[in-house]
Amino acid sequence: MSPWKAAVPGAPLASVDTPALVLDLDAFERNLQRMAAAVAGSGVRLRPHAKSHKCPEIARRQVALGAVGVCCQKVSEAAVFVEAGIADVLVTNQVVGAAKVRHLMELARRARLGVLVDHPLQVQALAEAAQAQQVRLDVYVEVNVGANRCGVAPGEAAAQLARQIAANPPLRFAGLQCYHGPAQHLRTREARADAIAGACAAVRDSVRAIEAGGLKVERVTGAGTGSFVHELASGVFDELQAGSYVFMDRDYGDNQLGAGDIAFEHALFLRATVMSRPTPERAVVDAGLKASSVDSGMPTVWQRPELRYLKAADEHGVIATAAAADLALGDAVLLVPGHCDPTVNLYDELICFRGDTVEAVWPIAARGALL
Amino acid sequence: MSPWKAAVPGAPLASVDTPALVLDLDAFERNLQRMAAAVAGSGVRLRPHAKSHKCPEIARRQVALGAVGVCCQKVSEAAVFVEAGIADVLVTNQVVGAAKVRHLMELARRARLGVLVDHPLQVQALAEAAQAQQVRLDVYVEVNVGANRCGVAPGEAAAQLARQIAANPPLRFAGLQCYHGPAQHLRTREARADAIAGACAAVRDSVRAIEAGGLKVERVTGAGTGSFVHELASGVFDELQAGSYVFMDRDYGDNQLGAGDIAFEHALFLRATVMSRPTPERAVVDAGLKASSVDSGMPTVWQRPELRYLKAADEHGVIATAAAADLALGDAVLLVPGHCDPTVNLYDELICFRGDTVEAVWPIAARGALL
Repeated sequence: MSPWKAAVPGAPLASVDTPALVLDLDAFERNLQRMAAAVAGSGVRLRPHAKSHKCPEIARRQVALGAVGVCCQKVSEAAVFVEAGIADVLVTNQVVGAAKVRHLMELARRARLGVLVDHPLQVQALAEAAQAQQVRLDVYVEVNVGANRCGVAPGEAAAQLARQIAANPPLRFAGLQCYHGPAQHLRTREARADAIAGACAAVRDSVRAIEAGGLKVERVTGAGTGSFVHELASGVFDELQAGSYVFMDRDYGDNQLGAGDIAFEHALFLRATVMSRPTPERAVVDAGLKASSVDSGMPTVWQRPELRYLKAADEHGVIATAAAADLALGDAVLLVPGHCDPTVNLYDELICFRGDTVEAVWPIAARGALL
Repeated sequence: MSPWKAAVPGAPLASVDTPALVLDLDAFERNLQRMAAAVAGSGVRLRPHAKSHKCPEIARRQVALGAVGVCCQKVSEAAVFVEAGIADVLVTNQVVGAAKVRHLMELARRARLGVLVDHPLQVQALAEAAQAQQVRLDVYVEVNVGANRCGVAPGEAAAQLARQIAANPPLRFAGLQCYHGPAQHLRTREARADAIAGACAAVRDSVRAIEAGGLKVERVTGAGTGSFVHELASGVFDELQAGSYVFMDRDYGDNQLGAGDIAFEHALFLRATVMSRPTPERAVVDAGLKASSVDSGMPTVWQRPELRYLKAADEHGVIATAAAADLALGDAVLLVPGHCDPTVNLYDELICFRGDTVEAVWPIAARGALL
């Protein structure tokens, strides 16, 4: 990492060295409040996904506003949040391999831990380890509700796996994981509603098959920032896993909202500096592929619609400008990243500002927690 | 980062936790030798780009085999290599901003440092800082030789900037930076040769304009892994900046080689594990966007042409399989990343293996050195 810091608390925002990941605390806090208000009184719990922020300080704020805990995507990521005092962590992923299972059991001694399965061999490995180490573990069956990634087919396949879990204490059949990833970025509210209606039908089939066998489905968990209003209103889901709402990104910003949707604000930006101004039509900033993940498209330039971030090289971002006067050498811009999760994972620190001043620097403690 | 390690030296390769960045030392050493042999006796120097590996251990091996030093892309990256004992570092980038210029001058006290300019204001800022701190700095004029990113136009614009540098001791006009990025991935040898022929014409125009004014162009530096055989043979370039040759990646592997090209081997891989096997046609591995940068396309599965890595989510990679027997839950695969540089930047350690055994674990010390 850099041998020096981009900023310290109390510094002017204008002095933050670049490229840097900066968080507008006012917008961020409004996003937290809006989500807390959306779920309040609904009977549906919020378990925000920490893979988006990887930042214990943010997780603590989410829990303080009512979240039951967090989701993580990796065991090593979960370890960071357990170490930070988060008492209830769901690893929304299959955990395969002896080392990973061992680490998971160690964490389950220190906090309430959940994990997903979609194959009998996973249940068997978890059962053997939990039995050997005498730790209790919440195990959820992941159901493919339309994402076509992981997950068993809805209905009887889910019921079989649920029975296997229940037959293997100290594993506990905790419920169903039903996340529809592709629904998150369908651009119209109608398309998202349709996708989640389909997911709900798959959930109902699965619940029916499981409960017909005498097991109870205590929890149906899923949803993301793009679709959660539909899971929230479904009567089928009782836990939401949205993560990106705290930050937003260009890709989520491109979703069209409709009546009943909740508008979150762009709170996360890359601060970048114009380091080259080779022609009137072209400016080059110091934030490229290592400062901004472009898997979901290029970043945009915040509140500068006349500027277009055209392409990214490792450490260069090329911006098209309509006129030479638009940007001068040394000017700073704020970029809205295309996809927040993998962009956050490029940085060791989140520089939090309010107005024109850096208020705090929060470690992104789970950055690079891949295992 | 992960609270535990993916591997320790002496461990079997088969035990390396995933996802992990692994280096085949035999292939890597052959790559180093091939490049050293290519430049030996040519009168052209090798200054490999360290932005590809960000690893002091690799830089030391490159210098031991004859490299004059390294290139870096960021001042903070240069700081890591100076700290590691590399005595000659060229920052192949414009450095804009008071904090960055100050750090650059501090480094120039400890090692031979070079930097690029493409604007008079950059020269002025460097001159003032070098004068104030009485440090000597090599300053190169970056010429746009076809990449249309940074760089002044060839010819008189380059000469003007060279004169400004020479007029401002302790800055030293050190030569021309003439890198043609887009040429690196033109797929045919002929297309790459044509692009570099065009670059050479631009270099000659610039040298002529500068030397007409009485200044000497001591060094023309540039080239990358895709094109360097052409710069090497040009009689115009006398320093090569190739970086990716140590590792190779899928995108470089897609280049078609011709007579006179040098074949480097894929030495860098992502080790990943099959964590879900939901259908006969689909396997899911534990390496997604946070394990492999997909800016230049998806990774491929090493020596498994029947498997196709279709798409990446944050922590999932979906692989299409022709038959259920192709991959079992828990199986490991090696992935060839689409683009090595931003992929390496996702990892804290490079796990080096020889045959079936982990031989060393090298810190990627400049990972995340963005400033």
